[in-house]
Amino acid sequence: MKIEIYDTTLRDGAQGAGIDFTDDNKREVIAALDKLGISYIEAGNAALASDVKFFDDIAEMKLENASLAIFCATRKPNTSACDDKVLRAAASCHAPVVTVVGKSSAYQIEHVLRTTVNENLAMITDTVSFLRRAGKRVFFDAEHFFDGYGDDPNYALTVLKTAYEAGAERLVLCDTNGGMLPDVIGVVVNAVHKRLPEAQLAIHCHDDMGMAVACSVEAVISGAMQVQCTVSGIGERCGNCNLDTVLPILQLKLGYACVPPERLSSLTRTAREVSEAVNLSFNEHAPFVGGYAFTHKAGMHIDAVRKRPRSFEHIAPELVGNSSDVLISRISGKSAYGAVLERIAPELELEVGSEKFNKVISHIRDYESRGFQFENAEASFLLVVREALGIRREPFELLTFRVIIGEPISVNPKSLSAAWIKVAIPDGEGGVREEFAAAEGLGPVNALDVALRRALSAVYPRLENVRLSDYRVRVLDSASDTTASSVRVLIESTDGVSVWRTVGVSVDIVDASWQALRDSIEYYLSKEAEG
Amino acid sequence: MKIEIYDTTLRDGAQGAGIDFTDDNKREVIAALDKLGISYIEAGNAALASDVKFFDDIAEMKLENASLAIFCATRKPNTSACDDKVLRAAASCHAPVVTVVGKSSAYQIEHVLRTTVNENLAMITDTVSFLRRAGKRVFFDAEHFFDGYGDDPNYALTVLKTAYEAGAERLVLCDTNGGMLPDVIGVVVNAVHKRLPEAQLAIHCHDDMGMAVACSVEAVISGAMQVQCTVSGIGERCGNCNLDTVLPILQLKLGYACVPPERLSSLTRTAREVSEAVNLSFNEHAPFVGGYAFTHKAGMHIDAVRKRPRSFEHIAPELVGNSSDVLISRISGKSAYGAVLERIAPELELEVGSEKFNKVISHIRDYESRGFQFENAEASFLLVVREALGIRREPFELLTFRVIIGEPISVNPKSLSAAWIKVAIPDGEGGVREEFAAAEGLGPVNALDVALRRALSAVYPRLENVRLSDYRVRVLDSASDTTASSVRVLIESTDGVSVWRTVGVSVDIVDASWQALRDSIEYYLSKEAEG
Repeated sequence: MKIEIYDTTLRDGAQGAGIDFTDDNKREVIAALDKLGISYIEAGNAALASDVKFFDDIAEMKLENASLAIFCATRKPNTSACDDKVLRAAASCHAPVVTVVGKSSAYQIEHVLRTTVNENLAMITDTVSFLRRAGKRVFFDAEHFFDGYGDDPNYALTVLKTAYEAGAERLVLCDTNGGMLPDVIGVVVNAVHKRLPEAQLAIHCHDDMGMAVACSVEAVISGAMQVQCTVSGIGERCGNCNLDTVLPILQLKLGYACVPPERLSSLTRTAREVSEAVNLSFNEHAPFVGGYAFTHKAGMHIDAVRKRPRSFEHIAPELVGNSSDVLISRISGKSAYGAVLERIAPELELEVGSEKFNKVISHIRDYESRGFQFENAEASFLLVVREALGIRREPFELLTFRVIIGEPISVNPKSLSAAWIKVAIPDGEGGVREEFAAAEGLGPVNALDVALRRALSAVYPRLENVRLSDYRVRVLDSASDTTASSVRVLIESTDGVSVWRTVGVSVDIVDASWQALRDSIEYYLSKEAEG
Repeated sequence: MKIEIYDTTLRDGAQGAGIDFTDDNKREVIAALDKLGISYIEAGNAALASDVKFFDDIAEMKLENASLAIFCATRKPNTSACDDKVLRAAASCHAPVVTVVGKSSAYQIEHVLRTTVNENLAMITDTVSFLRRAGKRVFFDAEHFFDGYGDDPNYALTVLKTAYEAGAERLVLCDTNGGMLPDVIGVVVNAVHKRLPEAQLAIHCHDDMGMAVACSVEAVISGAMQVQCTVSGIGERCGNCNLDTVLPILQLKLGYACVPPERLSSLTRTAREVSEAVNLSFNEHAPFVGGYAFTHKAGMHIDAVRKRPRSFEHIAPELVGNSSDVLISRISGKSAYGAVLERIAPELELEVGSEKFNKVISHIRDYESRGFQFENAEASFLLVVREALGIRREPFELLTFRVIIGEPISVNPKSLSAAWIKVAIPDGEGGVREEFAAAEGLGPVNALDVALRRALSAVYPRLENVRLSDYRVRVLDSASDTTASSVRVLIESTDGVSVWRTVGVSVDIVDASWQALRDSIEYYLSKEAEG
């Protein structure tokens, strides 16, 4: 049986503390979710002009599996839907689905919306019909549904019936406060299903009791055919139902068809990509997708897992693109590395288990133990692999650099940092050519970046085209003094055609940035040399 | 009805990745849990000499509510309990309770333990009787119980009956792999309860499906009278059932008596204390105890919460010692700012819509347009508000700083950065005192941080207690050259008691870090001055 996954990371997830999606982030998230094979992506709120514009901007984006949805509320009391600016924006947006939120609890209608229960029904009919006439598919989010049903089941059902009769294709039962127990959800969904047997029900849960997944699963068992959720459960307060968890439970444990079966193995990667896109630190203890989800520490357990994986693993980790591991190895197992190596460096013919392969893995593990993480830095990964095999050819050698940071900008707004750098570049005839360059810049990393490219430009003029397109910093551990902790810098570079990512780790942010900058340029030059 | 809470943070929790309790940590955890009023604390494993010694060391520790338990396994196949060193250690330890883990799945017995199902029963009888004769209360952990029951319910029940007849007071049903759904747990617990009506059942769940809390609650509803759990759910893989979540659900939502009612309000503090004791970063999105658990961001929600808290809060946060909060972000409206101002600066009496209020908002919007974001930086927010009102009193003025970044660490591993700083500190009599200090550090931010605190220490010795607990950097836009883009630095500081967050934005990462550092210290000193 098919169960639809409806993702609202970019709308309800964006309500989470510290979450701030750029348009580029949103594109990445949409692409990743579409690749995973989920059914619907709610990509914005029609009440925000920037979200509406974003829908325009991605009008040409090709999606393989997913349909886009835009979110809005019913019209205001005692107005008309066709005069509502937000609804008109939703109607003219190119997303095929509009998800309309409306009230289903008399308490909410009287105390928050401050109108009558009848006007609320009129608002729903008017809004849904208006959008249907505009050619939209309409999903109806019944806010506070379970509270409303508890207070007055007849009114709550009337709300659903009203939306259904106006043309809403999905009736989404929302536990808006996240305060319901799975048992209650199950009983109510079942009752609604019996009263409105033709309607297609969906469930939307929040995690305020740590039960959003359990509640959503219970709802599906009781008759819902769509689950609304967010990647890694991000969202306001304690977050939403976690897609990374609910999807494999529905598909692997309960046998529902949610995404094409071959896509499920990209789940772990998707969760990490989304997390990285918004610079959230990933929960390594997360069910199914966390680096520790199948990682064993207790000696007894490790032994048991070796003898019989079933002992301490409730599913085969490969099914969700994760791997089984013992601690120290932070994230992936050998087979995962094998797959990456086959993809990015097939010419090296690194067979899993071969001596060469093991040498490479042990070199990588060494980097990882120092805080490197290559998942989002495959260019650096490739360089480290070459290093392990003794075939890394550095296009230049750093002799030294120095950076002086200027006065604080608050004291002197024109203040700049200054860097000088000395590199040795092989001249191709066994000798080297020394280049020295200096540059000013906005901050130490910028100064160093400019100085380095200046030093290399005489020999490698094609570096002209390279620029950094992203730069991220993460502190790795909480030492007693955080400014002395290790930091990991991730840099994304582009030459306007392709994009590559590199990583550096150091206690010094400038040193970490330097490593990532150096890798970026080395990778580009080596790729160019091959191409 | 009484439901016992059995905490195993110090034993099963200690299996979690990155968890390492010192003896001092353990004492703190025991004291905090006892104060919270829970029933049992499993404080170690009899197989570890250091754990056994720890029990000796705390023999004199006075506990008000909790009984201590020590963990061990049944004797090995074909041996005798009284010859078993680990069991003898458990028997002579002063903990009144010994929790014995044994197998209940024929699959496990044959493939991992490699003995017969009958010998397994003999092992249980012998072990439990031996400990009973030594005067211990015995709890029996039936490992892999639900898998075992699925394979062969009769044998699984025979195991429980054997332990019960040998004198085990609690039969603990373990979902060792964390792969069970709540429905299944409920059905099985119910069946066991019917077959062994006199036995007292307990539940022990793991969170591999994000359902450990839901499963534990279902078990209680179905007849279990004890829940085993860990603070913040720490533990191997995805962790254990989360005490912080399951306790308030049982006590507040379902009306069971778990801890003395007046103690529940220390839950949030307990969770934070334990987290701090083991240097774990606290999950601010955690149900009930997280800093964001009752925090609202979306404009519509904030409006509703102010009108009727029940709208988006499933319990009164004060019941668990937490508080309701509103986040400020670019997507929130004026009412959100109003709520925040009312909470963090009631003395300013900033009424929404007043001239003073509008002045503050326009000042904040100005900061936001430059990339500041205050939702995770309320300390900076407060300073900006004071600035708008002309009442910001800076405890020091920056005259200048300079930072020199050392050679790259890859060239010189001992390389350090150096900073010097000059500040003017008001002497309280209209004059200023200039302080100059220099420091070396691991990278420019660390050097600057140390130098600043050194410069201020003569006048403000209480800064000794302040340390940074988190440091995050984010690039704000994709300019043509990212190293010249604006960066936003978020700093979290603590004095060991409270936590505050500050923000800085600049094209220069050192300058942005400086702003956040400066705000952190200014906020702390001004708060201290008031307190």
